[in-house]
Formats: sequence, C-alpha cells, structure tokens
Amino acid sequence: MGNSFGEKFKISTFGESHGAAIGVVIDGCPAGFTLDLANIQQELDRRKPGQSNITSARKEADEFEILSGVFEGKTLGTPIAIIVRNKDAKPADYDYLKEAYRPSHADYTYEKKYGIRDHRGGGRSSARETIARVIAGAIAKQILKEKGIEIYAFVKQVGTIKLNKHYSELDLNTIDNNAVRCPDANTAAQMISAIEQVKKEGDSLGGIIQCVIKNVPAGMGEPVFDKLHAVLAHAMLSINAVHGFEYGSGFEGASRKGSENNDEWINDNGTINTKTNNAGGILGGISTGDDIYFNVAFKPVATILKPQQSVNTKGENITLQNEGRHDPCVLPRAVPIVEAMAAIVITNYEL
Amino acid sequence: MGNSFGEKFKISTFGESHGAAIGVVIDGCPAGFTLDLANIQQELDRRKPGQSNITSARKEADEFEILSGVFEGKTLGTPIAIIVRNKDAKPADYDYLKEAYRPSHADYTYEKKYGIRDHRGGGRSSARETIARVIAGAIAKQILKEKGIEIYAFVKQVGTIKLNKHYSELDLNTIDNNAVRCPDANTAAQMISAIEQVKKEGDSLGGIIQCVIKNVPAGMGEPVFDKLHAVLAHAMLSINAVHGFEYGSGFEGASRKGSENNDEWINDNGTINTKTNNAGGILGGISTGDDIYFNVAFKPVATILKPQQSVNTKGENITLQNEGRHDPCVLPRAVPIVEAMAAIVITNYEL
Amino acid sequence: MGNSFGEKFKISTFGESHGAAIGVVIDGCPAGFTLDLANIQQELDRRKPGQSNITSARKEADEFEILSGVFEGKTLGTPIAIIVRNKDAKPADYDYLKEAYRPSHADYTYEKKYGIRDHRGGGRSSARETIARVIAGAIAKQILKEKGIEIYAFVKQVGTIKLNKHYSELDLNTIDNNAVRCPDANTAAQMISAIEQVKKEGDSLGGIIQCVIKNVPAGMGEPVFDKLHAVLAHAMLSINAVHGFEYGSGFEGASRKGSENNDEWINDNGTINTKTNNAGGILGGISTGDDIYFNVAFKPVATILKPQQSVNTKGENITLQNEGRHDPCVLPRAVPIVEAMAAIVITNYEL
Amino acid sequence: MGNSFGEKFKISTFGESHGAAIGVVIDGCPAGFTLDLANIQQELDRRKPGQSNITSARKEADEFEILSGVFEGKTLGTPIAIIVRNKDAKPADYDYLKEAYRPSHADYTYEKKYGIRDHRGGGRSSARETIARVIAGAIAKQILKEKGIEIYAFVKQVGTIKLNKHYSELDLNTIDNNAVRCPDANTAAQMISAIEQVKKEGDSLGGIIQCVIKNVPAGMGEPVFDKLHAVLAHAMLSINAVHGFEYGSGFEGASRKGSENNDEWINDNGTINTKTNNAGGILGGISTGDDIYFNVAFKPVATILKPQQSVNTKGENITLQNEGRHDPCVLPRAVPIVEAMAAIVITNYEL
Repeated sequence: MGNSFGEKFKISTFGESHGAAIGVVIDGCPAGFTLDLANIQQELDRRKPGQSNITSARKEADEFEILSGVFEGKTLGTPIAIIVRNKDAKPADYDYLKEAYRPSHADYTYEKKYGIRDHRGGGRSSARETIARVIAGAIAKQILKEKGIEIYAFVKQVGTIKLNKHYSELDLNTIDNNAVRCPDANTAAQMISAIEQVKKEGDSLGGIIQCVIKNVPAGMGEPVFDKLHAVLAHAMLSINAVHGFEYGSGFEGASRKGSENNDEWINDNGTINTKTNNAGGILGGISTGDDIYFNVAFKPVATILKPQQSVNTKGENITLQNEGRHDPCVLPRAVPIVEAMAAIVITNYEL
Repeated sequence: MGNSFGEKFKISTFGESHGAAIGVVIDGCPAGFTLDLANIQQELDRRKPGQSNITSARKEADEFEILSGVFEGKTLGTPIAIIVRNKDAKPADYDYLKEAYRPSHADYTYEKKYGIRDHRGGGRSSARETIARVIAGAIAKQILKEKGIEIYAFVKQVGTIKLNKHYSELDLNTIDNNAVRCPDANTAAQMISAIEQVKKEGDSLGGIIQCVIKNVPAGMGEPVFDKLHAVLAHAMLSINAVHGFEYGSGFEGASRKGSENNDEWINDNGTINTKTNNAGGILGGISTGDDIYFNVAFKPVATILKPQQSVNTKGENITLQNEGRHDPCVLPRAVPIVEAMAAIVITNYEL
Repeated sequence: MGNSFGEKFKISTFGESHGAAIGVVIDGCPAGFTLDLANIQQELDRRKPGQSNITSARKEADEFEILSGVFEGKTLGTPIAIIVRNKDAKPADYDYLKEAYRPSHADYTYEKKYGIRDHRGGGRSSARETIARVIAGAIAKQILKEKGIEIYAFVKQVGTIKLNKHYSELDLNTIDNNAVRCPDANTAAQMISAIEQVKKEGDSLGGIIQCVIKNVPAGMGEPVFDKLHAVLAHAMLSINAVHGFEYGSGFEGASRKGSENNDEWINDNGTINTKTNNAGGILGGISTGDDIYFNVAFKPVATILKPQQSVNTKGENITLQNEGRHDPCVLPRAVPIVEAMAAIVITNYEL
Repeated sequence: MGNSFGEKFKISTFGESHGAAIGVVIDGCPAGFTLDLANIQQELDRRKPGQSNITSARKEADEFEILSGVFEGKTLGTPIAIIVRNKDAKPADYDYLKEAYRPSHADYTYEKKYGIRDHRGGGRSSARETIARVIAGAIAKQILKEKGIEIYAFVKQVGTIKLNKHYSELDLNTIDNNAVRCPDANTAAQMISAIEQVKKEGDSLGGIIQCVIKNVPAGMGEPVFDKLHAVLAHAMLSINAVHGFEYGSGFEGASRKGSENNDEWINDNGTINTKTNNAGGILGGISTGDDIYFNVAFKPVATILKPQQSVNTKGENITLQNEGRHDPCVLPRAVPIVEAMAAIVITNYEL
C-alpha cells in the first residue's frame, strides 16, 4: 500500500493534511539508544512552513509527541510512534476545492483510485506527510552520526539559477546560513531574489537538490534489484514534486566514452581507492567507501496564486483562483526531507 | 537480499554469468493464461549478444526451459521457474581477473561485501542476469497486451548523438528496424557509425533510452513511498550501468515556473484529460490515464579493450589488458530490458 | 521486527502497557467504507479489564481516538491510525519488578534480546497490546459482515471443566450471555465457579477457546507455506499465553485411519460438499466453503498472587509477592482477541 | 502467494509433482560457507519414497543439481538454486483423476482457486514439494551445526501407539535406527507392525512427531506477531497433512493452574535458568536458552487403496479405486521435513 519504507529500520507514516495528526511508526530502531529530542525538533523546524519570507505562511508549531518505544529517554527496541497534531487547519478555506481538480495536483488521480478524497489541502497527498519522514530521518541521522556517517543536502539550482561548483569546493557546514540553503553566498542571494520575484507574481519555481553522504563504509548495499542507488532513487522519487534522480556522472555521463568515465583503482598510501569518482561511490549497487552523491530534480510547486483554467468533477470548465497561501519554492524546506530519506536508506544497511 | 522484485507479480532471479544457469521464478502469474513461447524467445533474441556487429560477440543461444508452473501450455497459478543454461562459458579466459579489480566494475565491492566472488565474467554482477528479467518481462508484456497496454522503449541518445524529436513524432513500431533500435533512420545511422568508431578504438559509449507506456488506466499506483514513478525509478536504476532516471518534464522541468509546467485539466469531448503532459502521466504517484514516459541514462559500459591502470587484491599496481570480447554500446540490447522492467512494474498493479 | 501482521489488510501495533498510548495503524482498509464506531467500542469493552468479577480489576476506559484515514465517517483508503491512551498506569506499583524476573513472564527474555526493558506491567510484552488488535479486528469483522462472513469464538474449556458439545449443538448468539463467554449455561456456571475458586486462592486457570468461521467462500487461501490454517495458527499463537492450535480433526485425528478421517465428496442438491468436515473447512491450505473451525489452547496466566520463588537480575534468590491485581482466567477477555485475529486473517484474503 | 518462507534465510520453492522438476531458491545463505553435498543427499534419502517397506513405492533417485550460488564448493552469498528432476512420472496413471475430486485432497479447492489444476499426482499440492524444503533445511542444519545448535525430530505416535517417555529419557542419536524413526525399540516395533497392518488393508495412519531444538541461545525471536513459537507453528502447519501444533505444556497445560504451570527462575551455579520448562524454551516469543520442544499432529494420509465414494467435476457420484502406490504412514518420511522447517526457522534468527 506504499505507506512504509525500509526493512530493518522501517518507517510507516499516516495522516492527512487537515486530519487530527501526522504520524510515524519506526520499527527496528536499535534498543538502548538515547534520543536527542531537541535535534528532532530542530529538523522539524528546518522543514516547517513560515520559517522565512520565501516559504509558505501556514503557521504550524509542528511539535511532536512520543507515544511509544521510548522509556526514560532511551529506545526500547519496540516500535517508536510519534505524532504531530495539525493545528492551523482551516477546513472551510478549502470548500471551493470539494469539486475542483487542481492542475498538476493529485485530486483527480486520488478520486480515480479511491473513489473518495479528503479535499482539504490535498489530504494524504499533501507534502505535510513529510513531517513524519523528517522525524524518522532525524533519528536515523543521530544513529549514523554515532558511526561517523554524515549527510549533507543543499540547493544546487532554483529555476535557472545554478550553483556551478563541485561540492568539494563548498563548505557544507554553511548550508543553513541562508534562507535558501545554498552553501554559496552569491548564488544564494540570486536564488532568493528569483524566489522573491515569483512570489510577487504568484508563481513558483522548481530546482535541484544535491546530496552528499560521507564515510559510508565499503560493501554496503544489495546487488541486483535493490542496488543502493536504486533504493536511493526510490526514496527520492517518493518525495512530493520530485521528477528526476541521477547519481555519480548521471545524465552527463551518458554522453561519455568508457575510457573517460571509468574510475581507475589506485593504491592511496595503503588504501585501495579510485582516482576519480564518476561512480558516485557505488559499484554494482554496493558502496565503494568513497562519497556517495546524487542530484534530485523538483518540479515547480503546483499551487500558484495566478488564476488557472481547469475542470470540476462534473467536467465543467472552471477558473481556479487560490487566494490563500502558497510556497513559491519548496526546495529550502525540502533539504531536510532529502537528508531524512537518505539517512533512512543508509540506516537500513548500517543496522 | 535484493534478488526479487514486485509483489503481486513477483520475480526472483538467480545465476552467475559462468555458473550452470541463469533463472527466474515468477510468482503471481495469473492462472489459465496461455503463454506465447515463441515470443519469449524473440525477446531473448533481442537481448542476446552477437545479434549485430555493434554488440558483444559472446555466443549464446539463450534457449529457455520451463521447469514448473505451466501445464499443457497454460499457466497454473503456481510459480513459473524458467532457466537458460550458460554455454559459451570459458572460465579459463578469466583467470587473469582472479586477483584484479577492474575499473568501474563491481569486483572490489562484491569482495568487500561477501568476502568471496566469482571472478568469471563478473559472476552475479554480470548483466547476463538480465536474461531472467527479459523472460519475466516477456510474460508480463503478454499479460498487458491482452489489456491493451503497450510498452515501447527506444534509444534516444548514444554518446553525443541525440534524437531530438518528441516520441509522438516517431513511428514506435519501427524501433527494431535497425541495429541500434532508434526509430529515426537518420539518427540511427549516426549512432551506428559512432558505435563502430568506438568499437575500433576498443572503447565504449553510454546513452539514453526513452520508454513510453500507453493505455494505462487512470488510478493505478500507490501514493506516498511507492509512487508509480518511484517504483519505475527503482526498477530502472536496478538495471546494470543505469545512472539516472527522469519522468515527465524531469530535470528540464526543474528550471521552469509553475505556470509553465502545470498541466491544465480540460474536458476533451467528455473525457477529463490534461492539455499538456508534463506530469508524465502520473500525479501524486498515481496514473492519470495519459501516456507514461521516462528517460533512463546509461553510463558507457566499463569493459573496454584499451589498456587501463588498476590495482590487484594485494594493492599492487597492474595494467589490465582485456583481449576478449567487449560490447561497445549496450543500449540496443538494453531496450528489451527496459521494456521488461517497465512491464513487470505495470503488471504488478494490473493484476 | 514482528509488530505487523497481514499484507492486504495490514495491521501494525505499537505501545507499552504503561507508556503514553497503545495504537494500531491499519493499512489496506478499503476506501469509502462507513465505520461503525460504536461497535469498535463494544469490542474494546468485551476485552477490557474490570468488566466482571472474574477478570482483572485494572480500570481503563479504553476509549479510542482516530488520528487518520477517516473523513466524514468514511475510510479514505489511506492508513487508519487509532490510539487508546493508558490511564490507570501507576508506574510506582511496579518498582519492585525493576530487577526481578517473574516466573513464566518475558522479563528475562526481553532483557536478553534488547538489553533494556520497560518493567512496568511487562511493557511491550503485556497483553494490553491486544487492544490494538481488537480495534483492527472490529473493523475487519465489519468488512466481513458485509460479505456475510461470521466469526464466533467461545470458551470451550477452563482448567478441567470442558464443554463436550459440537458447536453445531450450541446457540452461538448466546456467547456473551454470561461472564465466561461459554454458550452453554450449565458449563458456564461450572467454569465461573472454578474461576472464583482460583481467584480466592490467588491462582489462575488456563483453557481452550474454539473459533468457528462461517460462510467463507471456497477457494480462499494460499497453498504451500501460507496455507490458510498455517496463517491462522500463526495468528493465534501470536496471542499472549497461547500454547497450542489445532483445526478440523486436529490432534485427535492423528490417531485415526485414513478411511475414518477422509471426508467423502457428495452432491448436496447441486452443491458439491463433503459428508463430514474433519478437514475443518480447509484442504491443501485453501477453503472448501464449509465451516472453518479450530481450537486455541491458553496456558494459565503467569501472574498469580501466591508467593513465588525466583531470582533477580543479579542472580540472587528472591520471593515474589504480587499484592496487586491479577486476572484469574484470561479466556473470557481473550474471546474478542481470537475473533479479531481470525477476522484479520480472513479479511486479508477477502479484499 | 505463499511459495516463500523466511526473511533473512529465505526459501522459495517451485515445481509440480509430475512437472519437469522440483526446485528451491535459497536467498540469504551466508557467503563463504562450504556446503556438505553428501549430507544434502542423505537428507533427501531420509525423505524419499521407497526407502523401506512401510513407505510409498514411488521410485525416485531424487538427485539434486546446483544451478547457482556456489563456486568452487563455497557459497557466494548470491541465491542458491537447486533442482531435482521428476523421473518416475507416469502421467497416464493419473488420467482417471482428470475429472475426479479425491476425498480429503486439494483437487476441488485448487480448481476453485485457480480454475485449472495439474491433476497428475496432485500437482503443486503434492508433498513432493517438500523435497525443496529438505534441501534448504539440510543447508540450514549445516549452518546451525557450526553454531552448536542441534535439531532432533522423531515419531512419537502412530495411530493409537504412543511413545510415553519424556525426550530426555531417549537417545536421540538412535532416531534413524529403525524404519519408523522412533528412538525406542519396543514402541518402534509396535508402530511398524501397526503400519504393516493398515498397509495390507489399503488404509493409512496419522500420528505425532516431536521436535527438540537444543542450544538455542537466549534472546532469539521477535515478540508480538512473530513470536518464535508462532513462526514455528506457521512452519509446521505449512507441511502437508499437519493439523495441530503445541509447544511446551501445550494443550495439556490448558487444564493446569498458574502455580502448577509456572517455571520458577533459579540460579543454577551462576547461570540463570528455570526449574521446569513448561514454557518450551520460549517466553514472550523469545528463546530462554533452554530446550525448545513441540509436537506436530499429522492426519492419516488421504490416499488409500480402499474404494471410496466421491463426485466428479460434473457433480456425478463416482467410486474411486486407487490401484497404484500409497504411503500407509508418512510420519517416518516427515521426520526430515519437520527438522528442515525447524532449521529454516531458527537459521532466520541466527544469521
């Protein structure tokens, strides 16, 4: 049914955008682990709306409550259930959507699949579901941190503004230094200004997030159908609005010759390593020990304030005029989501 | 363990490149279905080496044997096990690889993961495993065909040669008319000549395959983690050498505004449809009823005939000189594999 | 990790006996189904402690809250999360158990497995977890009822008091007419008196519950490893304190000859049926269309008020004196749990 | 679909009784393990028909062929596929069954489920499928043996002849000393004579197999739904003809008081242990470290040579007269199957 992800560190999420709560059950978290609760809240705060003037204005404290699996601050090895109550839910705001199909939203397809839908803010199809992922991902990152594994995601492109530097040239500890989460001050400024511009227009922008995972030991991952990069792609494409994934030399590598793209093995002072890393840290679906890196493409968010033509459930032409809030660019808020999903994938192997 | 794919129509593959056989067990194939055995062989022939002078010269008849699940030509609803014996296996040819790590191959990572590897032709990491997928995919395509669902994959790019036409401008029934499986005669000729050139150089080329799935009914797919496009991405990235996936407007869409990328709903003579299809036939992870289309990026095949620097298991520098066979461009042979995996994904929902 | 059951109608439970809440996530419940909320509460009331003077005196209202998956009274097809808060939780009552291993409880084994345990009332090993199953089972029974499938469980044995009648001689609609849930007034009276006696002694009694499932259509179930009876056995043995399962002629049938045990096929006025039903309604793991029936054996509950010898975590001899509440016989309260698990198993096939 | 069992050491079986082959794919076998091939054949020989005059006379060499996953005698960590060809297959012998429903066989239910069946010898419902389990179980036992874990199954009851000794009074190394696999010479003689008697009558007998697993470390198993005993019950009930399972004090324990059934913890010279083992080595679904033991009840085999009344697919009354081979008591041949399934269950936790 698609509401769970992972096997050893398995997360199952539930909740609609304007229902009682969004929640996650984490099954497989190691026992005896001391959770850093403040850090979980920090990650939720990186995702929450209203954190800057380039994101949605929906007001949600997004405070979490632990229902099970933790005793005296430590994990029990039993399922950890955590919920966040939906508070800024104004169902009446959505009455005009009861019978409308919004362009590039899932209203129509949910109705075709289920014969029923919660029209309030997209119901289950809302990106509000990612709260659950960020909670689980925060815990996964805490587990990985103990093992020295670090995960960095940052905004590499917004609309047509691109960060044209290799990640090794950037200080990945400065990602959160600006509202757009691009670790290059000049590019960040351009991105912010582009977002402010479309915000004024009532429009939105897509972009690309790059993610780098450091210190993954060699030998992690399963070959054949569950290659490490295939599972990462699955995880990333499961995030709302994502339309593409590439790792290592990716789409650009498709135009190369083998002699250009192959990574020679070298003896690096006693350690076997490769001269280049076009493989993106993965060969045959298994980690090489080098950095894993990949790009995730987001379409521009579908909700815009400009009037749009559409049809209603009776097939009649309508003009949609969203007068509420909108998120001109989700990428800054999607950074912790990409990190969360990457952490969940890796934790599944590390346990 | 990653050797199975799918839930309702579940395939499990086994076999090493130079072991006794490659095989597949299909669990969940509907009972009472009359298999077209000749068609299964045809699909294997589209994948097999030696089919043209731009592919590998390994000689394999790749004839299959059904071990179970079929009675008097009809499926029983029980697991269908099918094997293909490995015949052109010359283990001695591979002795020089016993202690070598080939660039951009999985020798090193398999050894790190398992502590042991079958060095003969890559063992389990060999793309010879895809025989099993093509067999299962042939059956899946037969099932889908009965329901009117059609799957077309073709070569869209080889190295730097690109087919710059929308798929609607092409006759997708001509894909197999040339050796490179590009349904545009002029571009195909350029691609073939590029492959012949690198073949002479002992080098290889990557490229892009595009896949189009027609007549998928609206409402198919699971939201949240197993979005239809996430499962397709998983399936495609699980194919050897694949480094990227994008559907609908993909990476290009990341640079657009919402107002440019959104697909307006229209009433198309009584049928609700969208004016454009930047969504790639999928919204919220569920099919819209429109064509599903996506691109798959392949790196150039790692095996080349040019000498390459590398190290052996002791960490000593070596020069690798493959004097055997090589496949200058796997894309023509990968077309049936992409189709097979797409068919397997869709069959999982259609049953 | 063992906290989920089922595939199509999949339940995942969470919660410790004295944590914040017990909960269940139901994934796969059909969309558009109108839930009977009062009936869910009724089933919880049949399970809850304190409902009669032959059960535990723990006071819990056991009121449920729906967190997701239901909109305007109807299921959305998305995960249904439901929780029950723990209220009568007096952690201090359990301080004497922090370092004790209670006889025939899971204290020792949880500590061996996890290295940590919630000692308050058994934590996750407490039968309080079955609240989650009863909620999901109530929904499953509602779904099955619409299809005409009925499930009856009743107490067939308490200690040495046995109900020696075939279920066809009993009125299964009278099961709830007495506190012990045995649909035979005389036997019920003897059972109640036996339980009152051990209650006075501070001791407990085991027993047997029989379950009958009516109107299951022929052809349901999977052969080989997931035979319908194998899945029922799995479900029943997963209930706390259960030590045995038999279906059809069961253990008694083991002493018969084939000619005595075989069920002849007959033409029963146009319907193919069997003369006898030693098969228990299942052949080759698939339903025959006849009644499915099975017995479930419960050990006497481990918590007693008599002093018992044991050891603590340091290996020192201790005398345990439980001065709190105890349940002299769990069978009456286990009846809805057996029904719930049976309903969940069958619903997995019916969807 | 029910053709797979286990998660970490996962087996998937395929094959019909009179198809080309019976096979198993083992996914998750540790890499680098040296297989004892002779031992696998020994286990197959313990299961095969015709091994003594109290079993079926079907002649099958039951020789296995390894298709994958093993290189130079060692496991690769990749799927191990092993097949046994069906040789003594005389399809014509079964023509009279094409339209007949045999009493207490799965002919009718398979037809209801699949709409098609392979009538030759029961097709997929035949116990010949257990060849695949015995192969996988032999490997599992080899893995467990290295860890000191031993599994013994023996015949405890045949018809009304019971072995009334506790397993600790028996020499479990003498199980294979007689044809019936009962480790008590006197009882074995009585059992053999009872089987010879029903063989003459063309009838069959059921019985009980007891299984003891020694040296399982404490802390193995999952609580809640996948309790160790629930998974064992699932595994045992999945064996053809099994109708009951009980562990520890089982059905007999249901008539006891808590004070009689509870196992006191004691300090046994520095080791924490229990005075008695009514728990059957499992508490809360997790192993205690003590012996795990359970009973498995088999119905008498359904195929008998006496004439039987039945109906055909048209609902017409018929008299069935099997003139072929029959197995008067499957229990001796089921001993290695019970051991195999027990080994597979435990190996899933030990890896």
